[in-house]
Amino acid sequence: LPGSVRGVAKPSKGGKIVVVDSEGQATYTTLRKQALVTELQLRHRDIRALDPAVQLPYPSAIFIRKQALVLNLEGLKLIIGRDKTLVISVPSLTDLSARLLPDLNNPVVVRLSNHIAAARLPFSESAGMDGYMSADELNLMEALPYELRALEAALLMVLKILQHEVQHLESVTHPVLARIRRSVARPDLEQLYEIQNRLDKTISRAAKIKEILEELLDDELQMAGLCLSKVEGMSPTASASSAAARRADSRGELEGAKSEQMAEEADEMSEAEDLIESYWLQVDSALSRLKILQERITNTEHLVNLDLDSKRNALVALSLAVDLVLMMFEIHMAVTGIFGMNLTSGLERWDPYSLWGVVSVGLVLGLTAMLSFGLYAKRKGILNVPAFGLERAAGTINSSAGAMAGGLP
Amino acid sequence: LPGSVRGVAKPSKGGKIVVVDSEGQATYTTLRKQALVTELQLRHRDIRALDPAVQLPYPSAIFIRKQALVLNLEGLKLIIGRDKTLVISVPSLTDLSARLLPDLNNPVVVRLSNHIAAARLPFSESAGMDGYMSADELNLMEALPYELRALEAALLMVLKILQHEVQHLESVTHPVLARIRRSVARPDLEQLYEIQNRLDKTISRAAKIKEILEELLDDELQMAGLCLSKVEGMSPTASASSAAARRADSRGELEGAKSEQMAEEADEMSEAEDLIESYWLQVDSALSRLKILQERITNTEHLVNLDLDSKRNALVALSLAVDLVLMMFEIHMAVTGIFGMNLTSGLERWDPYSLWGVVSVGLVLGLTAMLSFGLYAKRKGILNVPAFGLERAAGTINSSAGAMAGGLP
Amino acid sequence: LPGSVRGVAKPSKGGKIVVVDSEGQATYTTLRKQALVTELQLRHRDIRALDPAVQLPYPSAIFIRKQALVLNLEGLKLIIGRDKTLVISVPSLTDLSARLLPDLNNPVVVRLSNHIAAARLPFSESAGMDGYMSADELNLMEALPYELRALEAALLMVLKILQHEVQHLESVTHPVLARIRRSVARPDLEQLYEIQNRLDKTISRAAKIKEILEELLDDELQMAGLCLSKVEGMSPTASASSAAARRADSRGELEGAKSEQMAEEADEMSEAEDLIESYWLQVDSALSRLKILQERITNTEHLVNLDLDSKRNALVALSLAVDLVLMMFEIHMAVTGIFGMNLTSGLERWDPYSLWGVVSVGLVLGLTAMLSFGLYAKRKGILNVPAFGLERAAGTINSSAGAMAGGLP
Amino acid sequence: LPGSVRGVAKPSKGGKIVVVDSEGQATYTTLRKQALVTELQLRHRDIRALDPAVQLPYPSAIFIRKQALVLNLEGLKLIIGRDKTLVISVPSLTDLSARLLPDLNNPVVVRLSNHIAAARLPFSESAGMDGYMSADELNLMEALPYELRALEAALLMVLKILQHEVQHLESVTHPVLARIRRSVARPDLEQLYEIQNRLDKTISRAAKIKEILEELLDDELQMAGLCLSKVEGMSPTASASSAAARRADSRGELEGAKSEQMAEEADEMSEAEDLIESYWLQVDSALSRLKILQERITNTEHLVNLDLDSKRNALVALSLAVDLVLMMFEIHMAVTGIFGMNLTSGLERWDPYSLWGVVSVGLVLGLTAMLSFGLYAKRKGILNVPAFGLERAAGTINSSAGAMAGGLP
Amino acid sequence: LPGSVRGVAKPSKGGKIVVVDSEGQATYTTLRKQALVTELQLRHRDIRALDPAVQLPYPSAIFIRKQALVLNLEGLKLIIGRDKTLVISVPSLTDLSARLLPDLNNPVVVRLSNHIAAARLPFSESAGMDGYMSADELNLMEALPYELRALEAALLMVLKILQHEVQHLESVTHPVLARIRRSVARPDLEQLYEIQNRLDKTISRAAKIKEILEELLDDELQMAGLCLSKVEGMSPTASASSAAARRADSRGELEGAKSEQMAEEADEMSEAEDLIESYWLQVDSALSRLKILQERITNTEHLVNLDLDSKRNALVALSLAVDLVLMMFEIHMAVTGIFGMNLTSGLERWDPYSLWGVVSVGLVLGLTAMLSFGLYAKRKGILNVPAFGLERAAGTINSSAGAMAGGLP
Repeated sequence: LPGSVRGVAKPSKGGKIVVVDSEGQATYTTLRKQALVTELQLRHRDIRALDPAVQLPYPSAIFIRKQALVLNLEGLKLIIGRDKTLVISVPSLTDLSARLLPDLNNPVVVRLSNHIAAARLPFSESAGMDGYMSADELNLMEALPYELRALEAALLMVLKILQHEVQHLESVTHPVLARIRRSVARPDLEQLYEIQNRLDKTISRAAKIKEILEELLDDELQMAGLCLSKVEGMSPTASASSAAARRADSRGELEGAKSEQMAEEADEMSEAEDLIESYWLQVDSALSRLKILQERITNTEHLVNLDLDSKRNALVALSLAVDLVLMMFEIHMAVTGIFGMNLTSGLERWDPYSLWGVVSVGLVLGLTAMLSFGLYAKRKGILNVPAFGLERAAGTINSSAGAMAGGLP
Repeated sequence: LPGSVRGVAKPSKGGKIVVVDSEGQATYTTLRKQALVTELQLRHRDIRALDPAVQLPYPSAIFIRKQALVLNLEGLKLIIGRDKTLVISVPSLTDLSARLLPDLNNPVVVRLSNHIAAARLPFSESAGMDGYMSADELNLMEALPYELRALEAALLMVLKILQHEVQHLESVTHPVLARIRRSVARPDLEQLYEIQNRLDKTISRAAKIKEILEELLDDELQMAGLCLSKVEGMSPTASASSAAARRADSRGELEGAKSEQMAEEADEMSEAEDLIESYWLQVDSALSRLKILQERITNTEHLVNLDLDSKRNALVALSLAVDLVLMMFEIHMAVTGIFGMNLTSGLERWDPYSLWGVVSVGLVLGLTAMLSFGLYAKRKGILNVPAFGLERAAGTINSSAGAMAGGLP
Repeated sequence: LPGSVRGVAKPSKGGKIVVVDSEGQATYTTLRKQALVTELQLRHRDIRALDPAVQLPYPSAIFIRKQALVLNLEGLKLIIGRDKTLVISVPSLTDLSARLLPDLNNPVVVRLSNHIAAARLPFSESAGMDGYMSADELNLMEALPYELRALEAALLMVLKILQHEVQHLESVTHPVLARIRRSVARPDLEQLYEIQNRLDKTISRAAKIKEILEELLDDELQMAGLCLSKVEGMSPTASASSAAARRADSRGELEGAKSEQMAEEADEMSEAEDLIESYWLQVDSALSRLKILQERITNTEHLVNLDLDSKRNALVALSLAVDLVLMMFEIHMAVTGIFGMNLTSGLERWDPYSLWGVVSVGLVLGLTAMLSFGLYAKRKGILNVPAFGLERAAGTINSSAGAMAGGLP
Repeated sequence: LPGSVRGVAKPSKGGKIVVVDSEGQATYTTLRKQALVTELQLRHRDIRALDPAVQLPYPSAIFIRKQALVLNLEGLKLIIGRDKTLVISVPSLTDLSARLLPDLNNPVVVRLSNHIAAARLPFSESAGMDGYMSADELNLMEALPYELRALEAALLMVLKILQHEVQHLESVTHPVLARIRRSVARPDLEQLYEIQNRLDKTISRAAKIKEILEELLDDELQMAGLCLSKVEGMSPTASASSAAARRADSRGELEGAKSEQMAEEADEMSEAEDLIESYWLQVDSALSRLKILQERITNTEHLVNLDLDSKRNALVALSLAVDLVLMMFEIHMAVTGIFGMNLTSGLERWDPYSLWGVVSVGLVLGLTAMLSFGLYAKRKGILNVPAFGLERAAGTINSSAGAMAGGLP
Repeated sequence: LPGSVRGVAKPSKGGKIVVVDSEGQATYTTLRKQALVTELQLRHRDIRALDPAVQLPYPSAIFIRKQALVLNLEGLKLIIGRDKTLVISVPSLTDLSARLLPDLNNPVVVRLSNHIAAARLPFSESAGMDGYMSADELNLMEALPYELRALEAALLMVLKILQHEVQHLESVTHPVLARIRRSVARPDLEQLYEIQNRLDKTISRAAKIKEILEELLDDELQMAGLCLSKVEGMSPTASASSAAARRADSRGELEGAKSEQMAEEADEMSEAEDLIESYWLQVDSALSRLKILQERITNTEHLVNLDLDSKRNALVALSLAVDLVLMMFEIHMAVTGIFGMNLTSGLERWDPYSLWGVVSVGLVLGLTAMLSFGLYAKRKGILNVPAFGLERAAGTINSSAGAMAGGLP
């Protein structure tokens, strides 16, 4: 009997977990692995995947078994049966990979049970981020079979945490990129590095969840298995033959009796399909926002690289100009230095004109050398210093876009 | 009754929207969500996706329901029924992601209703960008079922806004790239950064629309559902069995009666398929133009990088040459400096020849040092300064292409 | 009647185009859009796609309609019927995207009609690039149905222009890359930029054509529709049911009568498939040559980047060495400068030894400073100047490859 | 008889290998190739692939033959029969590509036989890395057919070695990257290079194993063949017809008798599928960890590049500033040098004011030159030296994430 | 009759080629194109693809015709019939793209005929690279139909040349990369460029061959056609209907008679499939080795880039330090220069203390300037010179891996 799992309290060999019944009531229970296998027909492998004691996290997956759905989405580990949901571990509200032991006061557990209870959600005050579920819509959701309601609650939870992560990353990244674009400083680079690592992880996580939903959508047999309640009514033989039917998927018979059952099942399945597709769309959208963020980082890196290179060229060119001036005076000094020696040059007889003559010769020699180098550089085209710091370009696109808008007939 | 949606005016719990009837007449109405669910058999999830009040935009999608097509393409949110189109929000003419409340004078609404009315379009004067629809062609379009005409009008609207965006991006990018190729300046880089971000977003948007159309084309069941009018005639049983037929897609029976109906349906579907494929092709073409633009930016970045690096090498090489000259005179001055000391050198006895001797020795030492360094650099091959600034290469390809054209037999 | 299109000469509302009949005779005719729709059962959408007056080019595509094949491959726009080909616009021999109005003397038109006529081609003199078609092979080609011959002629035309473009790009790129590898100069970079842009466009074009052929090959229904002549014989009912058969693609019946017809059709289809596959292979091969060219440009950029960086390091290292020499003499001069002051140092009493003593002290101080800096740099490993300019490596691989060839048993 | 392979001891033409029987007992035996072909119906090609004497390693693959599974996963080469496993070569515990000859004391062989024996594993003490198999779970595993147990043992072995490799790479990479981020030194770069090469190889290896498992999962015929025991019961005719059924996969008949057999087989197959899928998931997870590691290296390289570039700009800017100061004093010296000549300047009459006047003129000239260059550089925006070394940014994200966590309702 | 092709000696219109009969005997013959078409039922298009006279190489492909297999793998062009193989051109042993006319003494021809003859291969002495085929294995190969033996011989030839190329590239690349990592020199870069170009070509070639084999494996109809001997027995009607069966691939009938024939055919096909799959695996493995080589080059480039950048920073920092020393002495000289003027300073009265006072003032000013600049740079964190040249890192990973190996339980 399903009730026995919840009823028995002695911690035979399982931790304390939370169970949410079909009314959305959350209570503590203990996890008895053997009962899961015998009553919910799980495989030992599934239970191992959910075990919160295993250190190395088991990869995310959704398994559809005959009597239960096994959800293992990072920190959120659930077993959804026909009339109860076992919450084995939950993520934190800001980190999907955190694995917290469930607790009746844990906000994730509270929300999950509220969703399942189809009651008014407590977080409706933050209208900006939520607004998905109003009271009457939840009433409608009530009409769905229990397992689909629980699945939707779990997916909604995962989606919200993911969207929160996306929004947080966007809000953190943009100011860092803006600062780096203005001037490259070590602390900003360090922060960007942390952001990139987190972005890579979040992208990999979102892509995995998208892939899991995609595989569910593509596998019709699994979609049919999602509605546990329907499968229940079928005799074991029928269930076996339906499994066999997978191979015989495209044979020939479509008997009258089966046809009706199938029509019903198709309706049911179409509901489940719409549900999964809706979350697939939103995970995909979150993923594409993350990828655009990644592109933005790449673009910034390229821009900054070009900017630094260009500035360095300008610096080196200016440095060369200074060197040329230095050279000019060096030559001048070399000439005057000759006559600074305590040796007789023989020019003393034309004093004081000789002094100015030597100075002139020195300057002329220096200028000649400087100009010849300068002109050479000019002719080679390597002395053009571009304009920097004129920040007038940012608004150009938008204004021109606006101007164009009027011109479109 | 469908009419009741439009007829009832009390704003129970919906905003003011625009409805376009089968004559193309646009009038105001209020959105009653409950009516949509009961009459058009939409799902609550669909209505949530269309809700313009939700801040976080719902990802773009086209849902095909039994009584309606739900279009949610960025800012353009429509519900197309069998004989009327509910316009929930519209994009602006230049930005697909803008979500404006519909208004009878809004140019997008005006065009949509004109398209649906199959009347002469007001923007035929701008022949360069339009010319898609001439009067008689629109007459032919009249022959299509209402829902396909409305769908085509919506897709045409989206395509035009997308093409306008592509054209705008191309016209903005080319001059910026040309300026950057000539000389890297901060404002141009800032502008390029803005362009790249916008390009990434537009590419992601176009790719999403392409993917939506592709999925429609690939899913035969959905394509069959596009023609709402045809589905109407079928009994609910038939509809259910057609849903079941999806799974039985490759069974065996093809009864005579069904065969005829299917032939008709196939004709209908082929029209819808051609319609969707035509827009798919054009969105794909827009996407490939955007990608070529992206490639062009990348190519420019590489070119400029090489150019800057090469110029910097030339600058540093020249700087080294100047340093060598400096060194030469420094050595010369060091020698003459010796005899500038107020100490007796013992060379005074050969005056005035001693002065010139010292100068010669200094110059020879300096020259020797300079030449040995210079020759070392030359032998290492690091002193070759390439030619810059000779802008004669731009026209080479084209002219050679022209020359070759004549040579091809 | 098909003849009426050609027969009627009054330019009702169409431009002057060229029609090629089943004998390969090309004559002028006018394009009457209405006739196309009624006689060849084209869709208005197809005609719009072919319209040479539209400025924005319609994306490339091949549409297979019941009575005609519509080819729109960049500049080449054809309608192939059962016994005539309407040439609406042609590309130039060197540019696939050019859209010229057809003209009886246009070389592309001439070749198309020659191909279709299966006569000896005039460009057999350029054996290097052609040699595809000798007289007897063309006689065999005669055995193909008219529409396949016309399709082959069109694809051959497109392929030749594409191959010409590939060859031209290869012949232009290699010398530019060789020059850039030797020394980076502005004009070569400009030219490389032009080449890259053209390469990107050509790759996008070839990929599109490959994709079109691939989609044709993958879609069996379309392949079956390629042979217009066969479809002609079928009654409209059969044609409809064959369309319906698409969905019923994997049902059950394979009646005897149908079986024979299908065997014939299969032969016919296999010929069409081989034809398309052959051109697919060659477009794919052209595409892979273009991609290798792109790789080559990337490799060159990386090589040049490393080379420039390495040279710059050598330059800066040499510059540092010169600076060290400068510093040595500067120190020496600073010491001698002290005694150049017109102040009494008290060393005058040891004249003339004092002078040489001061010089020695200066030199020793300078040398000490220079050596300590130099040794520091050496110990840090940043003063190693690699060898440049020894161009002995180019032939190494080939010769070693040759040497190895002999060693393989 | 299968026993004969093990019984015959004379080394006809095979090396000494280890055989593990259905009790998990490992004993030595000799490999007789001919016996493999005749009894296990292997192909000669399979045996060649397993031959440890071949130097060039044969690519990894899993072949499913009628009487045996042939595993060739890098160093691990096994032939799994219905009741015995031939161990031809084993990898080392840390390197999957090592090919050691099996030995009864080899840890890999010991573990394999333990796994197969379903006994308590000796490495349960290292709970951190293992914990996969507890005693009762292994009892359950006992229920699986022998060949699946052996396959699971082999896959578990491969997975563990792969995970060990991933963990080792992660633990080696992070400190190197941290050091490089702080300061780029040659030894760290060398080490990073070694890590990257090893990472590439491990990624390629994991991707290959993932692909092999994926192909198994996708090919239903092969999955059906995995359970050798089931196939045994079938008559050769049935086996042949099941092979033929592959082509007839979607025909029509589903006879009653076959249906039951198929239902059983389906159960069996579903077990095998879950087994393979479970390992596929974990290899995929290992692969994604490796890819994130790769991303991290790339991110670090970009960060360090930007950092070095930015620092170099600062260095060059500072260098320019020093040059400007040099220039100032050079100009001053040039002026004073004039009057250091042993020529009469005519300023002697204003002594001692003339000296200070000249000094002032020199300094003013020098300052003017320096300031004009400096202001020019400032106006061009190329003299801004950013802040470095303030390592306050690292903890920013995490703390802000924490702060945000509280703020989410 | 097939013999007539070989028997007729008059060179009607074909070159001299080699034919290998079913005993592996190679003799000369002439190629008569018309005979190929009539007897082997090739298409003209196939013959054109094989024509060694065509300059532009036809893309690689394997065509399966009713009476022959047409292999066109770069330089290796074969027509395999039921009992003879026409060798039209062969590659060289080291270059797959070379197209040599076949010759009875050509090593490729010799090996091909030996393989087909199933005799002991002459190149068994080079055990390291071969060892694929021992005498008894070849006896087994004898059991395969002639066309599969010939196909295997051809694929083995291609594979060996490809593997030789891979090995050659690896042996050439590693030393070049090692040299470049140590120090970037022009000749090594040139050689790396040549290697990269060759690598790109080889990758493109291997990918093409892999793709061809993959397409064969995926197309069941083609696989069935591989065994020409089996198809021979079928009546033309059967052959046609089997072609038609392709479309009807998933219909319904599986008559008893057909079933047996299919079982046999399935066995045959499974052999062909294993053969092709085995070569696909090895080409894939060669491809992945090439890609790892490419990765290695990329990694080296990144490493060297970082190294050069880092060294340059160190050089510039050192250069700045030297500049600071220069500045210090320059300032000192500027001060002493003042008193070198032949003007009265008024300090003469404190001789000889004035001299040392001036020197002290100069040095203090210089030191102050130098230290203030130096401290500024230090505070900005841009003066840290990392350690280079300590080559102790290379062995770190391996030794730590070894250390870890012991620690794994």
